[in-house]
Amino acid sequence: MSKRIAVITSGGDAPGMNACLRAIVLTAHRFHHTVIGFKHGYNGLINDEKIEFTISHVQHIIQVGGTILKSARCTEFTTPSGLDTAVDTLIANEIDCLIVIGGDGSLRGLEKISQVWQGQTIGIPGTIDNDLSGSDNTIGYQTAIDTALDSIDKIRDTADAFERIFLIEVMGRHAGFIALASAVASGAEQALFPESIEDPHLELESIVQHVESLRKLKGKSSFIMVIAEHLWPGGVNDLAETLTNQIGIECRPCILGHIQRGGAPVAYDRILATKLGAYAVECFEHGETRVMVGEINAKQVTTCLSETFNVQKQLDPYLVKVQQDLFDIVKTLDAP
Amino acid sequence: MSKRIAVITSGGDAPGMNACLRAIVLTAHRFHHTVIGFKHGYNGLINDEKIEFTISHVQHIIQVGGTILKSARCTEFTTPSGLDTAVDTLIANEIDCLIVIGGDGSLRGLEKISQVWQGQTIGIPGTIDNDLSGSDNTIGYQTAIDTALDSIDKIRDTADAFERIFLIEVMGRHAGFIALASAVASGAEQALFPESIEDPHLELESIVQHVESLRKLKGKSSFIMVIAEHLWPGGVNDLAETLTNQIGIECRPCILGHIQRGGAPVAYDRILATKLGAYAVECFEHGETRVMVGEINAKQVTTCLSETFNVQKQLDPYLVKVQQDLFDIVKTLDAP
Amino acid sequence: MSKRIAVITSGGDAPGMNACLRAIVLTAHRFHHTVIGFKHGYNGLINDEKIEFTISHVQHIIQVGGTILKSARCTEFTTPSGLDTAVDTLIANEIDCLIVIGGDGSLRGLEKISQVWQGQTIGIPGTIDNDLSGSDNTIGYQTAIDTALDSIDKIRDTADAFERIFLIEVMGRHAGFIALASAVASGAEQALFPESIEDPHLELESIVQHVESLRKLKGKSSFIMVIAEHLWPGGVNDLAETLTNQIGIECRPCILGHIQRGGAPVAYDRILATKLGAYAVECFEHGETRVMVGEINAKQVTTCLSETFNVQKQLDPYLVKVQQDLFDIVKTLDAP
Amino acid sequence: MSKRIAVITSGGDAPGMNACLRAIVLTAHRFHHTVIGFKHGYNGLINDEKIEFTISHVQHIIQVGGTILKSARCTEFTTPSGLDTAVDTLIANEIDCLIVIGGDGSLRGLEKISQVWQGQTIGIPGTIDNDLSGSDNTIGYQTAIDTALDSIDKIRDTADAFERIFLIEVMGRHAGFIALASAVASGAEQALFPESIEDPHLELESIVQHVESLRKLKGKSSFIMVIAEHLWPGGVNDLAETLTNQIGIECRPCILGHIQRGGAPVAYDRILATKLGAYAVECFEHGETRVMVGEINAKQVTTCLSETFNVQKQLDPYLVKVQQDLFDIVKTLDAP
Repeated sequence: MSKRIAVITSGGDAPGMNACLRAIVLTAHRFHHTVIGFKHGYNGLINDEKIEFTISHVQHIIQVGGTILKSARCTEFTTPSGLDTAVDTLIANEIDCLIVIGGDGSLRGLEKISQVWQGQTIGIPGTIDNDLSGSDNTIGYQTAIDTALDSIDKIRDTADAFERIFLIEVMGRHAGFIALASAVASGAEQALFPESIEDPHLELESIVQHVESLRKLKGKSSFIMVIAEHLWPGGVNDLAETLTNQIGIECRPCILGHIQRGGAPVAYDRILATKLGAYAVECFEHGETRVMVGEINAKQVTTCLSETFNVQKQLDPYLVKVQQDLFDIVKTLDAP
Repeated sequence: MSKRIAVITSGGDAPGMNACLRAIVLTAHRFHHTVIGFKHGYNGLINDEKIEFTISHVQHIIQVGGTILKSARCTEFTTPSGLDTAVDTLIANEIDCLIVIGGDGSLRGLEKISQVWQGQTIGIPGTIDNDLSGSDNTIGYQTAIDTALDSIDKIRDTADAFERIFLIEVMGRHAGFIALASAVASGAEQALFPESIEDPHLELESIVQHVESLRKLKGKSSFIMVIAEHLWPGGVNDLAETLTNQIGIECRPCILGHIQRGGAPVAYDRILATKLGAYAVECFEHGETRVMVGEINAKQVTTCLSETFNVQKQLDPYLVKVQQDLFDIVKTLDAP
Repeated sequence: MSKRIAVITSGGDAPGMNACLRAIVLTAHRFHHTVIGFKHGYNGLINDEKIEFTISHVQHIIQVGGTILKSARCTEFTTPSGLDTAVDTLIANEIDCLIVIGGDGSLRGLEKISQVWQGQTIGIPGTIDNDLSGSDNTIGYQTAIDTALDSIDKIRDTADAFERIFLIEVMGRHAGFIALASAVASGAEQALFPESIEDPHLELESIVQHVESLRKLKGKSSFIMVIAEHLWPGGVNDLAETLTNQIGIECRPCILGHIQRGGAPVAYDRILATKLGAYAVECFEHGETRVMVGEINAKQVTTCLSETFNVQKQLDPYLVKVQQDLFDIVKTLDAP
Repeated sequence: MSKRIAVITSGGDAPGMNACLRAIVLTAHRFHHTVIGFKHGYNGLINDEKIEFTISHVQHIIQVGGTILKSARCTEFTTPSGLDTAVDTLIANEIDCLIVIGGDGSLRGLEKISQVWQGQTIGIPGTIDNDLSGSDNTIGYQTAIDTALDSIDKIRDTADAFERIFLIEVMGRHAGFIALASAVASGAEQALFPESIEDPHLELESIVQHVESLRKLKGKSSFIMVIAEHLWPGGVNDLAETLTNQIGIECRPCILGHIQRGGAPVAYDRILATKLGAYAVECFEHGETRVMVGEINAKQVTTCLSETFNVQKQLDPYLVKVQQDLFDIVKTLDAP
């Protein structure tokens, strides 16, 4: 029997959201279901702003960055009356299932709807931050790393040419996934991320020491430190100034910012988005609800919605160790 | 106690081989071991052509494609006297451990050395083909997919502009990993790979039918088929000609070829290469031998060398299903 | 007074065609003119298949490869009755001016229409081949070079790793623009293009000699030759086989093919396309006809249509000399 | 007769500097001259830190970003005694000609040396800023535009997804070349550069008006403004805050920074660098001195050193007009 699936993209946009929409629409078509997209995240539910997807809408979007459904923050949705309005819209449109592609805030919203609405609810992890439990990778994460890496590689050219110190701030909200991965991949001399340090200010002395040790080594010309956003009080500009004053060598700050969100998704994210979009529709078909779909150890799984944002996701412990080991080599080098 | 580790890169080059060399040299340094690189694959062992790696050799190579150690096929090594000479070189250089970064042919070679030489032997999966058991991904595979994808995206522009059929041949030797992944990621209308078809010639009629069905659909303008190399008798040029004759619409063949091997590795491969390089040295430290290091379900593991090339590695079954499902949608569409 | 401008994209697609369409529509809007796009090149005129462009059609296409107007070869148009039908369509749609974005074949078509139709006709050079007189660069040419270069850089990685010889065929129809530029930019050891050789077969001995000389030089590991398409009898595959037999070292052929056509245009082409699109509308406004717009020495100019395809465009003579000089250095090196 | 050519790269690094070094070394080799590179810009002359280039040094650097000769600011060189020391080094090393690749500050330094040293002096325009008279393009400029464009395209994805306003600061010191080109190429809704505005503060009202007009238009979702660095008092962060307060819509600032300097040069810069490097050596051969080599209207020319930095280089007037025209269309659109 044909049913009606609603879908929104919510929160910060992530490369691969469009590939995921495409997979949802194509797979729903296979089951003869209708897909209605609501625009601008939860605002679309409040304002009943929608589009009924046909296959031609999604035929050429697998490689497109951003989201054709638009996204937005929605403060009204956080109020009781906002939530009621959203639910009314779902009911008025005779929706059987609401699929939300987004990060932790978006899935919290979906969980709230689940508590007051009878339809099925399915989340899909779409965020560059990779900070949702229930999936080894979130859609957009691998692309964000490669985008950050592309910029860090370019900065390395100038750092090498000038034998300079660069501090590069990458995204990642409250988790160090992007910082750790892009630091290791770029061969950065140091990485600072929430999981790696307890008190930033206590770290300053050790940072200075590390920079100075490494620069004393013959043939070591440039120094790149990758830092997660929101980590250092005052930000990377402040840290650069502090280091410049303490070390006496000019440190340049660089904030990668929103370029990490956009761009065509890499193959990894297109494939993950396609699999999770298809799997979400299959889960709907099997009657699942209040879950997020994900991929763990290359298997498709579902996780209770509340667990995805309440359980802290861990960094790859071996990668943390390797980064630390490479970092420690400088001490070995120093010992004459 | 300081020991001597030999390392070679062998077989087709793969992006990330240099990142792996870097991790081996840095990690060995942490244990105060010496790393000697032999050049041109197994030829370096036969000709005793070597370089003792210092840290400065590997400081700026994490992002460099190809292999600074060079690679080559080595027919002499496949003879008994060639094998003896290689072993003599290892003994003469007082090597404690031989690490080989390469594909299945390279690991077969390492297994042969293991049978006649006392030192430890450790393989690292470095091939774009991803056809080694014992690791979910081989070093270079993700980069090769993204490189193929980049080209297919470009061809899609022309295919769309001309509403044309393109047949694109990708690498992958006897396995469909690259073909399947790049087909799904590019939204290709069809994918042919060894695991997907039994007898190519029996498939022809079904291919023609599929192309014709899809092109009849309103709004469907271009058609891209991704084909694994060595699959079609006569190659993609022959298939294009056959299809052109049978369908009456011009089909263009395109062989991506060696561009899939080169280029800076993507973050995924740099990180995998760094982890496996470090892990190989740690395995040496722990006395392991006749194994390949790998990563399965995000954990570092070792697998018996002979198993890596004797056990057939399976494609992701869900990805095969998704590709098939998306492919089948055309039939749904056709039924009015 | 508001007038009606028809526009088609014709011949091989070129990156920047969409950027040019955008500039035409926006500039026409400034003069309150209407722009009607006919689809599939001259077929659109024959079949009266059209779209009236609004600003929203072109708002997000500046970076899109291919052409949203589609392109195609059109054999019917080359017949007298086809030409008549096309002109009838222009008259029936009350078109005041026909703008054609394309290469030499497309502009020949426009010239034919000019001879039998009263409206104004303006050509815009849109082809990756750069073989039209009347503009220093054609739209798409710089992007094609960078695309070819990107692939050659990747092949260089493998060529270096294996110390191998690669023969790379690039597009360019009957002119050596892409071959010369991509050869110099990639540091290719040799370039063969129509303007550089008289009789390919006479060249063989000199090619063999050059390859052998260069490979004898210590430290010279790889050898890349860039060849224009249609140059060597039997193509690059045949040349590779011949060289392999004569030199005794394996030569690998590589045909870049259609990947050179697609992709997002580089800044240079987007800017050129924007300027020429705007200038074409301004030329219409000033009453010009039977001309192609172009840019020579950074100035916007118009050239008589027939001159653009009848006068042979010359390669940059200094670039030819530099390529030859770098090529000759090997002889200097050889003399001990 | 064999002579000795000194070369330095100075000031901000620019993609293509290595390609230029390669051409200098290869061409000098053709004339049997020796090339000595001094490191870290003018510091190398003061500290006599040098390298004698062989062909193998430059064989694989045509695609490498940054500069293998390193660069640096050099305050000591600006003192009389610093200048004396530099000249002493040139004399002690029996240098016949000093070639400097750099921007206006670097060429000013070369002019100073010219006044007190007998050898020949030749400048090569190497800066991403394109603000030197005497050459239509400087080495690195086209790459910087494409790098900025790549980032702006990515930011556009998020801007579109969120229908947001982004203010993007690009490099360019005191000239608007990068800002104008990257704004037009990205289809930015507005561009602010030194040549476009007289008093930034007077512009604020007009900016606000423009943003508001454009956002009122149906279907206009995102708004990107490209701003040259050092233009707005307080920088782009300050402007974003001011606009956010005045318009009531969140404006996001983004500073592209040093990523614009690095990366592999695009074909245009590799070719320009190769031609100017070769031409500089030929000019030396012909006895020219106190000049900068450049390319104007596709011809190689020399310009008196002092003129290159004293004469203000003009933006492309037609591009300024086109940018202004596209900007003005909004007014047309507003009139119902």
